[in-house]
Amino acid sequence: MKGRLYIALLHYPVLDRDGRVITSAVTNADIHDIARSARTYGVRRFFIVTPIAEQADLVRKIIGHWTLGAGGALNPSRREALEAVEVAGTLEEIIQWIDREESGPVITVATGARIAGLCMNHRKLSELMERDACAYLLVFGTGWGLAGDVIEHSGYRLEPIKGSESYNHLSVRSAVAVTLDRLVGRKHGS
Amino acid sequence: MKGRLYIALLHYPVLDRDGRVITSAVTNADIHDIARSARTYGVRRFFIVTPIAEQADLVRKIIGHWTLGAGGALNPSRREALEAVEVAGTLEEIIQWIDREESGPVITVATGARIAGLCMNHRKLSELMERDACAYLLVFGTGWGLAGDVIEHSGYRLEPIKGSESYNHLSVRSAVAVTLDRLVGRKHGS
Repeated sequence: MKGRLYIALLHYPVLDRDGRVITSAVTNADIHDIARSARTYGVRRFFIVTPIAEQADLVRKIIGHWTLGAGGALNPSRREALEAVEVAGTLEEIIQWIDREESGPVITVATGARIAGLCMNHRKLSELMERDACAYLLVFGTGWGLAGDVIEHSGYRLEPIKGSESYNHLSVRSAVAVTLDRLVGRKHGS
Repeated sequence: MKGRLYIALLHYPVLDRDGRVITSAVTNADIHDIARSARTYGVRRFFIVTPIAEQADLVRKIIGHWTLGAGGALNPSRREALEAVEVAGTLEEIIQWIDREESGPVITVATGARIAGLCMNHRKLSELMERDACAYLLVFGTGWGLAGDVIEHSGYRLEPIKGSESYNHLSVRSAVAVTLDRLVGRKHGS
């Protein structure tokens, strides 16, 4: 992969079941599962985005336990995964962060089960990532998905994951794993 | 898909970090995430296997809340996912259960990050499932993976999921999602 891959998990602005914009709570399983998937598929950094200072502190405390504290000594592979996790207040902050780290442009890719409009498919995005030396930031939403504003301002929209059924309610943890496997793992797996 | 697909999540016999056979505790996130992935990819039934009666009762209580109780009324898609979850005491019980439901033979497929020996790859298994009208039971382990006995007695061993790195520590929730996407979703997704 030529292009560098980053992930953001947004807790704001996301939707609730009625389509209202809310701030969702951080979930421990999201931090661990997505960090492990990110590490498995060569993601450079996994950003957890929350505008609430107490939630950001909580995430930092969890990361600290597994990277600097007792958890990391007990479970080195977990430490390795959580070392790539960062906390940020907004999506804009992350984009600036990546901009400073990388020389090329940052391309944001919105994801979600209900994303509509002109979508990029996984294969095509995988080819672009292979070809262009850009930084790609995959943006995932918690709750009932990303707010419309985030989707509208993204560089690309990734088509929703389809299984064999019309049912389409993967957890965000599962969606991240499948997305990374389709974008990165296909070339390596069989 | 011609063959019928089933999933089992084993809490016994599985390994701990030191390779000893243990009974692991049931995790709420496993039930929900794997049920949702199973429903998305057309899995007929998702079995949670624990020999501990109190743990089995706990799982039934959680399922009941989301299928019969307040949770299901609030969240119909979660109810739909959890309706396909069953609790069993042993792997043998499940195989007998599927035997009664299905006319053809049941083929067990052991999975795991550390599985070695002669493995079937995802593409090949997907082709077999497409072709043969068998029932396939994918067996996933919690903790540090399935005990050797389960692997040795399975019909096939599925090759471990590889990302782009040598790091290979997906959560079982992520591993189930990626496995189903490789076996079933590839034909539908892009």
